[in-house]
Order: sequence, then C-alpha cells, then structure tokens
Amino acid sequence: MSQQPSTSDTALTTLVGLAAYTELAAFGLLASRSADAPDLATRQTLATAAGEALGRQQRLLHLVDGGAAAVMAPFDGALADFDARTSPSSWAEGLLKGVVGLGVAQDLCRELSQGLPGGADAYRGAVGDLPMRDAATAVLAEAASADAVLAARLALWGRRVVGEALGLVPVLLAAHPPLAALGAAAREAAAEQGASVQPWLVSRLTAEHTRRMDRIGLAA
Amino acid sequence: MSQQPSTSDTALTTLVGLAAYTELAAFGLLASRSADAPDLATRQTLATAAGEALGRQQRLLHLVDGGAAAVMAPFDGALADFDARTSPSSWAEGLLKGVVGLGVAQDLCRELSQGLPGGADAYRGAVGDLPMRDAATAVLAEAASADAVLAARLALWGRRVVGEALGLVPVLLAAHPPLAALGAAAREAAAEQGASVQPWLVSRLTAEHTRRMDRIGLAA
Repeated sequence: MSQQPSTSDTALTTLVGLAAYTELAAFGLLASRSADAPDLATRQTLATAAGEALGRQQRLLHLVDGGAAAVMAPFDGALADFDARTSPSSWAEGLLKGVVGLGVAQDLCRELSQGLPGGADAYRGAVGDLPMRDAATAVLAEAASADAVLAARLALWGRRVVGEALGLVPVLLAAHPPLAALGAAAREAAAEQGASVQPWLVSRLTAEHTRRMDRIGLAA
Repeated sequence: MSQQPSTSDTALTTLVGLAAYTELAAFGLLASRSADAPDLATRQTLATAAGEALGRQQRLLHLVDGGAAAVMAPFDGALADFDARTSPSSWAEGLLKGVVGLGVAQDLCRELSQGLPGGADAYRGAVGDLPMRDAATAVLAEAASADAVLAARLALWGRRVVGEALGLVPVLLAAHPPLAALGAAAREAAAEQGASVQPWLVSRLTAEHTRRMDRIGLAA
C-alpha cells in the first residue's frame, strides 16, 4: 500500500480547504457587521451567526487530516479580488455581500460535494443546513421591507456581488484541478451529462441565488 | 411569595449582563484582529479565540432568564468611552487592547462573582479558565519577543489601556448598585474588611494585569 494520499483524499481535502476558507471569510464578514450593527440585538444575532460559521468550519476540518491553516493554505488570498471588487458603501451592503458572495461559495462547495468519491453525506453532515444565511437573511429582509429605497439599492448591489462571485468559479476550478474533477463527477452524479461543467454549475448557483434573494425580498 | 426577582437573581443577572457584554466585545475585538491578521495561521487562531469568547457568553447567558440582548441591555455602550480613548495605531496595539482591556473586565467579573449569594461555582463553571487570553497572549508574546522596539511600544500602550480600563471600575459600580453590592460581598468573602471596596478591587485587578503582561513578556 502506498503512503501517498489517494485521489479520493486529495479531492476531499481540497474541497474542505475551500469550504473552510469560505467559512472563515463568512465569519469575518459577519463579525465585522456585528461590530458596527445598528443595535445590540442585531449585534448579538450576527455574532452568533459568525460563531455558527466557525462551528461549520471546525466540523469540516474534522473530516480531513492536517491543521486548519495547512488545509486552507491553497486558498489563502483566493477571495482578495472578489473582496476588492465589492467594496460596500453601507452596512447593509456589507451584510448582503456576505450573504450573497459567501452564499455562492458555500453553494459551490455543496454542489461539488456531490462528486466526492465517497458520497456527500459526511460533507453535508458537517455543513448542515447553513443556518448562517438564515440569521443574516432575516436581518436583511427586515431592513429591506422597511425601506423601499434601500431595497432597490440592495437589489442592484446583489446583482453586482453575484456577478463577481460567479466569476470566481472558473478561476477556482482552473487553479485547483481536484475541484474541476469534483465538478465533472457532480454533474455526472446529477445525470446531466449534456451540459459542460461550468455552465451547469453556474446555472445551479444562479438558481440558488435567485431563491436567496427571494427570501430577502429583493429582485434577483 | 412575590413574583418580583429576588436580590440574588438581580445580582446574578446584572453580573451576567456585564460579563456577557464583555465577551461580546472580546469577540468583536478578536474577530477584527483576525480579519486583518498578518498570516492565515494567526487569522485562524484569533477567529477560534473569538469563537471561544462567544462560547463563554452563551454559557453565561444560560445561567439567567431572558434573551441575550435584554440581559446585556443595561451595559449597552458601557465600553464606548474606553473604546474612544484607546484607539490603537497598529494591529498589535489593537490586539493588546483586547487582551488588556477586556482581560480587566473579565477579571472584574470573576472578582465580583465571589460575592454572589449562591457562590461563584456556577459562574466559574461558565467562564472556565478564560482560554481566549491564552491564544491572543501567545500571538502577542511571539510578536514582542521578535521585536524589541515593538515590545517597548506595547509596554507603554499596555499601561495606557489598563489605566483607562481601571478607570471604568468606579463608573460601572456607581451606575449599577447590584455590582457595588457584589463588590462589597466579594471583599467580605475574601475576609479583607480593612480596605474599602474600590481600592481593594483595583489592587486585585492590577496584580492580575501585571501577571498578564508578564505572560506576554512586557513590562507592566
């Protein structure tokens, strides 16, 4: 038996690296919006949501060997471009950036997990039902329903953020062959061999984005 | 039997409110220094420490009835003055502010818990051994040992921050009579009736501050 990591191990470790890095970014964005939240209840809600992102990250990291920083290292800086291109001009825009941008990244990881050789159950067990989105979504939905001008601005902002986030997908798949292989396997598992991988992924992520914006009460 | 909260309930709820608010502030400061940490390993270490602050907060809040925001509400804004007077000029100063300023607040709560009518066991069980300080302390100790100029600056900065933090003690006790009563009971429990409450508390907190700076390798 070889002591080299198997292809299966590499696929899981790479996916967990991206997902754990995404959750660390989600933690940071939610914690920042907690720190400058308009009231104590919102501050607490977003702090708790940030803590849940860390909890998901810890459960993800338990699926693989290696320290957190080592597992995430291949993705260090992977969101820097996205971050620079989506500099929010208000608190609500910053929160929506987290919900939309990191929602897309989380959805990408969930889609890719369908291609894992051992199946997606362990991965899905670790990330659960993504409760982070629910708390932040509720805060945004309340803000948007109370202010039509804000809602219109946020709808525009959401389109900009999702465009930048979807633009990351081909970059990530090209830079990390194990992720591209997972995408191909996930598409096969979904029995949708007709489409090539990237358009298939983007259509799945766009559909989920539309549902997410619906939950906030914003036009996608 | 009256349905009014007993003095004992009020003391515990007030102390938990201050302690929970302090942990929320610690979460925010650690998360902020995680977001702009110099490397991925430090970013992860401080995110985990921030998550531990939230964990302590949750365990504290379980000791009392009422939602998190309601229990903390009497202390909303209590740290604003401290925060404004200690605006850090570097990443390391920001982290030391969290370790020193919130360390003093955590120590204050632990000292006051000795005066709880039911004893300090439940409170001590909730906050544990304050591991938050350990992770951030290790990060600061490493930075200080590698750079004598930084260490000298941080020693000065620590004195400024602890001065502002200790200045909060009389303000908090005056604004919240249940805390003043806990202070008096804690001093009695320590069988140090000779000193009046505030000097006794300040001397205890100063001694703990000196030990904390020693652990970082900085002159107190």
